[in-house]
Amino acid sequence: VPYRPFSGQNCSIARALEVVGERWSLLVMREAMLGRRRFGEIREQLGVAPNILSDRLGTLAEHGLLRHDGHGEYRLTAKGADLQPVLIALMRWGDRHAAPAGPPRIVVHVGCGQDADPEYRCGHCGDVLAPGTLEVRPGPGAGDGRRAEPPQPS
Amino acid sequence: VPYRPFSGQNCSIARALEVVGERWSLLVMREAMLGRRRFGEIREQLGVAPNILSDRLGTLAEHGLLRHDGHGEYRLTAKGADLQPVLIALMRWGDRHAAPAGPPRIVVHVGCGQDADPEYRCGHCGDVLAPGTLEVRPGPGAGDGRRAEPPQPS
Repeated sequence: VPYRPFSGQNCSIARALEVVGERWSLLVMREAMLGRRRFGEIREQLGVAPNILSDRLGTLAEHGLLRHDGHGEYRLTAKGADLQPVLIALMRWGDRHAAPAGPPRIVVHVGCGQDADPEYRCGHCGDVLAPGTLEVRPGPGAGDGRRAEPPQPS
Repeated sequence: VPYRPFSGQNCSIARALEVVGERWSLLVMREAMLGRRRFGEIREQLGVAPNILSDRLGTLAEHGLLRHDGHGEYRLTAKGADLQPVLIALMRWGDRHAAPAGPPRIVVHVGCGQDADPEYRCGHCGDVLAPGTLEVRPGPGAGDGRRAEPPQPS
């Protein structure tokens, strides 16, 4: 399918989704973060068709999120590990809104040994960043700004 | 295309992606969070085909992330607003790895008025949750646990 690219948008969300937004890609990254490296074990965990998995692994390696070691293993890179917050955020939304029997998995903070209960906080004042507490303004990469200066919610 | 569903996986990431993982859906949610409500303005911002946008808005409304007011406007619900961390996480990954000219947008924390520089912290001890500082264990919804008790990274 000749997808219409997101790349015309000067937006980091769109650009991230160009790399990891294809169907299955984030679940492949989940597997990588859980320490699975071999094509066969990832395929078995996901139940994905081999040609699709091959395509996704190729794209993720091409963009440097995984590194193919040449012996059938795909290893997480630092760029790939940086996706951890994306997976945490999706997991927590799913825990809250799509897990009637309760969370299938609990995330434990290795540092303190407790349920991490991850929450986004302001790096300046430390407050929890609840919905509705953020607004956006153009950044250094805004360019002509047409798409980077959206109206604020009314 | 008869997609193979993610729903066989007992995983909140997979379940969240069943709702918001289709191409364009998260960008539609971005628009909703930026306060855009009308089909036409969302379509114009995204450059998406009308039939695709109509499908995505319908799915998001069906799952309760948007509410169609019957007069052509789609409003963000609390369930939709809860996706804020997912969009923040994608934005920050894109800012770091796919924004050579710098971040197109800066997120400002309304509470303190400063660049929010959002970071995930442990809800128990307050430490920043850097990559590699988390591990998972089965939660109350793990069920038989086959897919919910992954091996830890070696």
